Amino acid sequence: MLKPVRVGICGLGTVGSGTVNILKRNKSLIDARAGSDIQIIQIGARRDNPHCDTSGYAITRDIFEVANNPDVDVLVELIGGTTVAKELVLTAINNGKHVITANKALIAHYGNEIFAAAKAKGVTVAFEAAVAGGIPIIKAIREGLAANRIEWLAGIINGTGNFILTEMRDKGRAFEDVLKEAQALGYAEADPTFDVEGIDAAHKLVILASLAFGIPLEINKVFTEGITKIASADVAYAEELGYRIKNLGIARRAAKGIELRVHPTLIPAKRLIANVDGVMNAVLVKGDAVGPTLYYGAGAGAEPTGSSVVSDIVDVARTLTADPEHRVPCLGFGADFVIEQPILPIDEVETAYYLRMSAVDKPGVLSKVATILSDYGISIEAMIQKEAKEGESDVPLILLTNRVQEKRLRDAISRIESLDSINAPVVRIRVEALK
Amino acid sequence: MLKPVRVGICGLGTVGSGTVNILKRNKSLIDARAGSDIQIIQIGARRDNPHCDTSGYAITRDIFEVANNPDVDVLVELIGGTTVAKELVLTAINNGKHVITANKALIAHYGNEIFAAAKAKGVTVAFEAAVAGGIPIIKAIREGLAANRIEWLAGIINGTGNFILTEMRDKGRAFEDVLKEAQALGYAEADPTFDVEGIDAAHKLVILASLAFGIPLEINKVFTEGITKIASADVAYAEELGYRIKNLGIARRAAKGIELRVHPTLIPAKRLIANVDGVMNAVLVKGDAVGPTLYYGAGAGAEPTGSSVVSDIVDVARTLTADPEHRVPCLGFGADFVIEQPILPIDEVETAYYLRMSAVDKPGVLSKVATILSDYGISIEAMIQKEAKEGESDVPLILLTNRVQEKRLRDAISRIESLDSINAPVVRIRVEALK
Repeated sequence: MLKPVRVGICGLGTVGSGTVNILKRNKSLIDARAGSDIQIIQIGARRDNPHCDTSGYAITRDIFEVANNPDVDVLVELIGGTTVAKELVLTAINNGKHVITANKALIAHYGNEIFAAAKAKGVTVAFEAAVAGGIPIIKAIREGLAANRIEWLAGIINGTGNFILTEMRDKGRAFEDVLKEAQALGYAEADPTFDVEGIDAAHKLVILASLAFGIPLEINKVFTEGITKIASADVAYAEELGYRIKNLGIARRAAKGIELRVHPTLIPAKRLIANVDGVMNAVLVKGDAVGPTLYYGAGAGAEPTGSSVVSDIVDVARTLTADPEHRVPCLGFGADFVIEQPILPIDEVETAYYLRMSAVDKPGVLSKVATILSDYGISIEAMIQKEAKEGESDVPLILLTNRVQEKRLRDAISRIESLDSINAPVVRIRVEALK
Repeated sequence: MLKPVRVGICGLGTVGSGTVNILKRNKSLIDARAGSDIQIIQIGARRDNPHCDTSGYAITRDIFEVANNPDVDVLVELIGGTTVAKELVLTAINNGKHVITANKALIAHYGNEIFAAAKAKGVTVAFEAAVAGGIPIIKAIREGLAANRIEWLAGIINGTGNFILTEMRDKGRAFEDVLKEAQALGYAEADPTFDVEGIDAAHKLVILASLAFGIPLEINKVFTEGITKIASADVAYAEELGYRIKNLGIARRAAKGIELRVHPTLIPAKRLIANVDGVMNAVLVKGDAVGPTLYYGAGAGAEPTGSSVVSDIVDVARTLTADPEHRVPCLGFGADFVIEQPILPIDEVETAYYLRMSAVDKPGVLSKVATILSDYGISIEAMIQKEAKEGESDVPLILLTNRVQEKRLRDAISRIESLDSINAPVVRIRVEALK
């Protein structure tokens, strides 16, 4: 019998609905990882959300009912804003509840006060979802890199800004033009100031800097410069010089103090982070022991952000209910939940294939090869055929196939290799789209 | 007063010396994060290591003394191999010690047995360093992505193989040729079988798959194919088709079972993971809620791997000594260790700069600009000068400078803008190398 952990969720917007949907869909898996029976016992929301079926849940229109509900162990604040949200979080803390929030503005502005209140009451405040959406970057810095003196970090931590800069580069479009599209797509707000002037990124940057350097949150000391003045010409010249322009949040330990700054930045095009495009986020962290490490993923959206909220719920649940010396089981699932599953023999695995053949330079070879592949239900997605080199009679024939079972492909290759016009074993390398 | 956590380290090779050096160099910072006084109370090693000053530590030549030392809370196994290492780890567990290991072969082959023994004795076995060196990938899957049903993961988890494939692509070199260089550089062993035949990657892959899917470790069911037969021609044809060849470990939930396979794979060149080069590692994890996320960093080496070993020590220490409801403090450092530090005003920040000017198309302008920059100690690292467009009298002049203080650059720009031959405000974007 798993011990219950009783969760109250406040706010049923994008992230709230994502969180509820994940907890519902993956309940058995999440409980097996948490070692607890995670129950949503109350949802506080001013209105329903069509993206979230809340039938079966206790709903209240008064979020403070959740903060004052004596049965709630963990309050999840997803209402946004900083005024009511702060009051809600402090009420929950004063009532002895653990708090989880996705609210970067709240933490950036009032984190110092909120953390002190939580310490005084002996409860946890978790906020993985406040920075870089679904990327577990807070856990990485706070725990995964705990051995390191962090030298600097640099992040693409505003998806809207990165989408705009990516479109400007890929299509040579102007800032204003792409901004309008981003607004139409719902990536940017009607008033885009928070995104394009670097304010949203500044909220996230001060949180990362405090984790990296052990300093209080200092939102008023961040230098921010927006991307509104970047011209298409600068994007193109940067490219010509071997650079890309990215809107970065940068925190660095310098000799005389800490640098905290958000601004458009030219970075060498060959750096991995220069290739993070569209609305995706990434954070590059340089530790003295580990060197550079990078964390990449979706920086916003219902379920990516909900993924981080739920990981915080699992963290709190593991702490509340698990044997403290086994907070996280070795394989991440309680021993009773580690279950054998069939492992597919390679014959049954399906992938696409790259094939290279050495063929006699005569008409009709390609047709024979294509006929054999077709007999096995394999189609050709791309092809390179080169002329024979001076003095050679064989020509290379390179094919990409569609996805097909390994065994079927092997049988087709045997038949191809038995053709008179094919002179060497067929080279075969698997292809994965990784989408 | 921080409570002591007493650590015994077995093995003083590459990872052992990296671990001891990090614990020594960053002791105060690590203790502030752990909320404990982490003490190395004994080191067991058959011989000394010139890369590690062990003066002041209690050294024994018999590693089993460490496993039987009643004062040791946590035994760190860094001797490698699977025979003595297994006996050592099981002895420590039977003596009620927590165990940390970087030994992928040991976990892949005997993890099921070792975890069962640990559960029976109520101790932890941690192994972050066993997969992908310094990248906190085990923590990411086991905790950060706990909300997700993992659909698949794909990793570049053998640096030697990735170094060879990268060199083959960049320089058109043959496999055998690059392998010899890798051996000379110390990236590959004299007998390179473990690396180039995919065995090392298979060890890491089964560990990742068990964490992702909640299945026992099944090293004997992994399909492995090496990179020894990849020809330069295939690398070039793949490139022509828009792909790169990477040696991937892939674990996937398919309809009929789990796929576990290590083999060279063509992946689209535009994927971020296709741009992970040299000895670096990266793991791409696709969760149903979060979508694709990627984790990148050094996959081997003394301090990167030591970083993961020490993060496990901090994890165990936090569990052993912290108030369980505050296992990890909000900002990752105990509240007493969150200390204000000066934040540098932007005027004092030093970066390189991209400058774009609109100059009258007359001789001598560049010389005037260069002279002003030189007066402020600013040198020009790169330049683009274009001809005036048809019918326009101004030409764009684009410069990259060396690193310079913001204030000094701003003063120089003021002087440049006051030149008669400069007709518009100078565009200025900061440049970061991110190395």
